[in-house]
Amino acid sequence: MIDRADSVGIVTPEKATFTEPLTLQCGVTLPGFELVYETYGELNDTKTNAVLICHALSGDHHAAGFHHDDDAKPGWWDACIGPGKPIDSNRFHVVSLNNLGGCSGSTGPRTVDPTTGERFGPNFPTVTVRDWVKTQAMLADHLGIERFAAVIGGSLGGMQALQWTIDQPDRVEHAIVIAAAPKLSAQNIAFNEIARQAILSDPDFVEGEYLEHEMNPDKGLMLARMLGHVTYLSNDSMGDRFGRELKSGDIASARDVQFQVESYLHYQGTTFSKRFDANTYLLMTRALDYFDPTLEFDGDLVETFRQAKAKFLVLSFTTDWRFSPERSREIVDALIASRLDVASATIEAANGHDSFLLPIPRYFDVLGAYLDRVAAER
Amino acid sequence: MIDRADSVGIVTPEKATFTEPLTLQCGVTLPGFELVYETYGELNDTKTNAVLICHALSGDHHAAGFHHDDDAKPGWWDACIGPGKPIDSNRFHVVSLNNLGGCSGSTGPRTVDPTTGERFGPNFPTVTVRDWVKTQAMLADHLGIERFAAVIGGSLGGMQALQWTIDQPDRVEHAIVIAAAPKLSAQNIAFNEIARQAILSDPDFVEGEYLEHEMNPDKGLMLARMLGHVTYLSNDSMGDRFGRELKSGDIASARDVQFQVESYLHYQGTTFSKRFDANTYLLMTRALDYFDPTLEFDGDLVETFRQAKAKFLVLSFTTDWRFSPERSREIVDALIASRLDVASATIEAANGHDSFLLPIPRYFDVLGAYLDRVAAER
Repeated sequence: MIDRADSVGIVTPEKATFTEPLTLQCGVTLPGFELVYETYGELNDTKTNAVLICHALSGDHHAAGFHHDDDAKPGWWDACIGPGKPIDSNRFHVVSLNNLGGCSGSTGPRTVDPTTGERFGPNFPTVTVRDWVKTQAMLADHLGIERFAAVIGGSLGGMQALQWTIDQPDRVEHAIVIAAAPKLSAQNIAFNEIARQAILSDPDFVEGEYLEHEMNPDKGLMLARMLGHVTYLSNDSMGDRFGRELKSGDIASARDVQFQVESYLHYQGTTFSKRFDANTYLLMTRALDYFDPTLEFDGDLVETFRQAKAKFLVLSFTTDWRFSPERSREIVDALIASRLDVASATIEAANGHDSFLLPIPRYFDVLGAYLDRVAAER
Repeated sequence: MIDRADSVGIVTPEKATFTEPLTLQCGVTLPGFELVYETYGELNDTKTNAVLICHALSGDHHAAGFHHDDDAKPGWWDACIGPGKPIDSNRFHVVSLNNLGGCSGSTGPRTVDPTTGERFGPNFPTVTVRDWVKTQAMLADHLGIERFAAVIGGSLGGMQALQWTIDQPDRVEHAIVIAAAPKLSAQNIAFNEIARQAILSDPDFVEGEYLEHEMNPDKGLMLARMLGHVTYLSNDSMGDRFGRELKSGDIASARDVQFQVESYLHYQGTTFSKRFDANTYLLMTRALDYFDPTLEFDGDLVETFRQAKAKFLVLSFTTDWRFSPERSREIVDALIASRLDVASATIEAANGHDSFLLPIPRYFDVLGAYLDRVAAER
């Protein structure tokens, strides 16, 4: 049995169906779509206590609690969301969805395209962070939420929170942007491209039609995840965790050597390839690469944020080299220059980009204190 | 025509044949072996001006000059080796070899195993940095060189220079160790393992028997090289060079987007997969992972270096995150504690680990000044 003392407990995903055609940023129109989502905590009478959780590359709607009594693990951000936790379900009505193009129940590559009667597969249209904000706003309409008290996300989720303040300035009071960047660097794009190539060059990818062939690009997805994982961790945290500990063999005779870190990455990669859809992985990494809210503002981030009305909390972690504190500072500087209300902190943390998922005391103190203030305004 | 003013000009590789059995650290005995090498500059009458160049992961014996008049490119370290250059062929007799297990002419996976009549392929035994030092010393014997004025290398080559001072203390006067580390970190090993998995999971690898099947694991090698390349460059240098410049497509509409950095990495990866042997790549990355000169000294680097008699120059580069300046400092601190003669410098350079191959003025000034002193002792 699960100890639910500080958990939202058993949750049941729900589905919202949108029957009107949706034209995406790429120009393609979907005849309609579905979004799967969960909520934690009650919406208050004035409907002013809703917060939206935006997920990152490999996340989904299941952010907190458990689906079944015998679940081994809770949702991906359970450490942060729940009664008495920084995102307090006693005070907020928390909405968490699987984004359009995902593989956990929302319309995506695994969905049957009603116009062809076949799965979208590799033909699912390109989706962008702007498309996600647009469809998240439609979900808010569906739920009767006019305005979010806060939109919150880490990594790619933080980019969605930023885009909300630009595209839906009247519908977001606070944006909490964690371990994000105003756009990807060439190095970020390069790592994503290697992950994509690993998937594309796996013969079991079958040009994206693997499900039709009852196959799965396990090895490509494994490589993509291994690579992602190394870039999420810091050099120091990997050293502390694995050092040069051997799993097997003997370095002195250079025989059959396997290091613990290799074994760990294999496990991570293999587990991921069983649960995640390759076409979705490609689509998510492209959304990351293409993200650039300044495109319609001549590349000027300050000008871009002039649309925004929200108040901001921007958080970063000292050892995060994927989206380093410098990248968060770019966001903060632009927000200040745009005369917006910004709080920010760089948290000492050993765990690299992954820190945003971990219950680091100062991180949770800062986040919790900020959200206390947001709750007090309700 | 090539401008040979500051070049060693046209060079012809030579081959040394060793007919005695060689027992490797892994316990396997080779019946004999060949090493291909080049030399630049004359050996003096007292045979005291020889320097040895040790190559890194993807290097070979062709370090300087040209093989043919119409060669598009010189050897891999031509910027540094030649008349009037830091490693001055007017003053030194420079020896550069392809290491055992290589794919450029020395005995390696592509060689026919005389005991089976078939190529070694994936059955080529594991080789280590110690094996390389041992066979390099045999090459020195073959050339009539009792003692090297200096053993010089960058990256994996620097590790060979370190191992020389421990295993052959009387045969090396100066060790020049550039952009190296006393052993790999868990993160370093993790990146190597991902590169290996990319090769091993390519169906055209055919369990290492690709040549027998007239195939080549082009995609696996391409991925390995793309990944290596990203870790050789710094985030800043990639930003300066590629930014988010597009090769094709339009981010605003999210259509057919390809970034310059992706195109560059494809080119690098594809070129590499045509020239390099996959079994050699696996073997070289394992030699890197296994490198740990402290193994016989209870992990104590200070104790390890008590064997050494050489003088040291240890160089690192500010933006190198593969083998960072901190890793060089570990070497320097241990050398000092071992009461050895050490000079060291950390060079401001934008180009990450790749800096060691580039003609950066302060780097070449420091290296040239040190070698001036070595030459003056001849």
